Amino acid sequence: MPFIYILTDFGTRDGYPSAMKGVIHSIIPAAVLTDITHEIGPQNVMEAALTLRRVTPYLPTGAVIVAVVDPGVGTQRRPIAAQIGKHYFVGPDNGLFSLHIHAARATGQPVRIVHLDRPRFWLPNVSNIFHGRDIFAPAAAHLANGVALGDLGTPVDDPVLIELDDPQPVPNGLRGFIMHIDRFGNLATNIMRHHLPEGKTVRVHLAGRTLPNLVLTFGDAPVGSLVALIDSADELAVAVVNGSAEALLGAKTGDPVEVGWD
Amino acid sequence: MPFIYILTDFGTRDGYPSAMKGVIHSIIPAAVLTDITHEIGPQNVMEAALTLRRVTPYLPTGAVIVAVVDPGVGTQRRPIAAQIGKHYFVGPDNGLFSLHIHAARATGQPVRIVHLDRPRFWLPNVSNIFHGRDIFAPAAAHLANGVALGDLGTPVDDPVLIELDDPQPVPNGLRGFIMHIDRFGNLATNIMRHHLPEGKTVRVHLAGRTLPNLVLTFGDAPVGSLVALIDSADELAVAVVNGSAEALLGAKTGDPVEVGWD
Amino acid sequence: MPFIYILTDFGTRDGYPSAMKGVIHSIIPAAVLTDITHEIGPQNVMEAALTLRRVTPYLPTGAVIVAVVDPGVGTQRRPIAAQIGKHYFVGPDNGLFSLHIHAARATGQPVRIVHLDRPRFWLPNVSNIFHGRDIFAPAAAHLANGVALGDLGTPVDDPVLIELDDPQPVPNGLRGFIMHIDRFGNLATNIMRHHLPEGKTVRVHLAGRTLPNLVLTFGDAPVGSLVALIDSADELAVAVVNGSAEALLGAKTGDPVEVGWD
Repeated sequence: MPFIYILTDFGTRDGYPSAMKGVIHSIIPAAVLTDITHEIGPQNVMEAALTLRRVTPYLPTGAVIVAVVDPGVGTQRRPIAAQIGKHYFVGPDNGLFSLHIHAARATGQPVRIVHLDRPRFWLPNVSNIFHGRDIFAPAAAHLANGVALGDLGTPVDDPVLIELDDPQPVPNGLRGFIMHIDRFGNLATNIMRHHLPEGKTVRVHLAGRTLPNLVLTFGDAPVGSLVALIDSADELAVAVVNGSAEALLGAKTGDPVEVGWD
Repeated sequence: MPFIYILTDFGTRDGYPSAMKGVIHSIIPAAVLTDITHEIGPQNVMEAALTLRRVTPYLPTGAVIVAVVDPGVGTQRRPIAAQIGKHYFVGPDNGLFSLHIHAARATGQPVRIVHLDRPRFWLPNVSNIFHGRDIFAPAAAHLANGVALGDLGTPVDDPVLIELDDPQPVPNGLRGFIMHIDRFGNLATNIMRHHLPEGKTVRVHLAGRTLPNLVLTFGDAPVGSLVALIDSADELAVAVVNGSAEALLGAKTGDPVEVGWD
Repeated sequence: MPFIYILTDFGTRDGYPSAMKGVIHSIIPAAVLTDITHEIGPQNVMEAALTLRRVTPYLPTGAVIVAVVDPGVGTQRRPIAAQIGKHYFVGPDNGLFSLHIHAARATGQPVRIVHLDRPRFWLPNVSNIFHGRDIFAPAAAHLANGVALGDLGTPVDDPVLIELDDPQPVPNGLRGFIMHIDRFGNLATNIMRHHLPEGKTVRVHLAGRTLPNLVLTFGDAPVGSLVALIDSADELAVAVVNGSAEALLGAKTGDPVEVGWD
């Protein structure tokens, strides 16, 4: 099946994603369209990149992912399409796919990128401010419809890359930060499972509090407890059991978090 | 068609439902996936059960409904799948499907439940905190793909059941409560059409006000009026015509409502 | 493919749109269902009409659009279906499709409307307050399933029409108003590209400010600047680059906007 997954910062209220979907259906009626989210913070490219990192490992092989968080729409920033590992990606060249490109290069998976510079794969009229509808949706539709990546545009070997800072070493530990806060108020950090020592008790310090160790799951502590655990994306996270760590701690994205061990 | 309908308390902002959908598409590409809602109040099992009761009568025969409101994720609570009446259900064994089980048993419809205890129908790696993605989505996909319910796990005959309190009799009337407040600020109660006498004028008392009778629909009273009526789920509801009864009355879920007649 | 696009003011929290989708799937399992939005302001028929005007040009030829913003549900207002230009429309006869009807008549495109007065194309039980589920969803499903428009009901030649005021002439300019504010806080006006003179510098006045000319796109001005531009629906819009003009100006729908030129 020609699967296309869509992520934007458009919100759902104004109908913008549905215009993209209409464009895709008009080119490839058999497309199966699925929303990743449309609630990325406006212009927040890093939040989009992190959401893509969390979700795309679970999407079918060959799926096309269209991501439009595009503060530079209508300027000289390039529209691109890419094959990265087992998926295709379409969107602006502003770093949205950086985490995927870094990961693929680190593990020797294929990375091929093209500049979407061939107007025959766009809508006939291209607005200056809605390339999601006028360039990215049709490009994704053509990819899903079997057009070869290399036919969509000129190869690119210098994509814009953004970096997610790794946690920094401190004596007997690491210093990171809160990277994402989800609907439940769970605080995901940039400290990953693989950053932590195996077989040691890990303490977590944030917002003036210390958590003496990690739990395996929420239900391992009483309702209302503040706990640290490895979340479903292999990130160290801090949560309140059946509650909101964001609300309890007044935490914000970017706040520091430290881990330590003996 | 293999229809799968999805209800969670995940919200749509973080992309969690799309990871479930990717898992399902990877197992059964032909699945037709539809959201019921992802905005159930965090951990609010009863709200989820009520929403399922309102929606599922309208879903196609044979559809699979995956519901994940799961405060006990990762603990000993069982993951289950069930056939209840004309639909299949997949989710945690915490009472989410109670209202359906009660109704099916009361009317002699089939109820078959299994414990999802066979890891070959899960994702290879199961996190401790996202069984929606790792256990429930693949189980739903396998069901929709034709795996027999009985093959997914061991039969269960003691599912966790929760109760929705019936309205209580008072002299010449009933005492109930506000069960659900919807987007419009309409107040749905646990008093159902079948609880009320036919052919009598029913008065409704709440928040210090009395409504002298029921109307048939919103347009039967002027804009801004407070009215009581039987809603589209056969529940007694209180509404403001083209406005919000929640806002007008400062009403909350659980607030008492009385009905009386002569 | 039988495409059905859905717009309502139901919100997504309570599951109402999914009941409509279940009804449609039960009648035409092959239907491809796509949300336009469910976040139209409650009972805001004009906002719905404007959203439809922005989106429908991009939907596939032959698609069925179901729109349910229905303050008169259950009263004598007629349920209708229509062929307008290349699409079908289903919903209450309250002006939702006015902008499409005006535009089609102005350009000589077909407009055919029927009153959905044949109960065999409804659900067997019709509630007084949820015609989206009980009348409009089944009618849309039957249309998508190949039932001829003329079979669904009696022809209508006096549909309810609402008007979107045109901008009014003032000396060397036009006076309009803010018609829609989107998720980004961009302010779309009722002044369209075709209302403006070609080849002249256009000044925009609103909220005590003057913008000396239009820009082509957001990136043509520094982050945080207030700019005026023609948006992706050919409307004159006022925006803050990577910010919210709504928040900066405290703007509301209906606020006046003037344009002038020399």
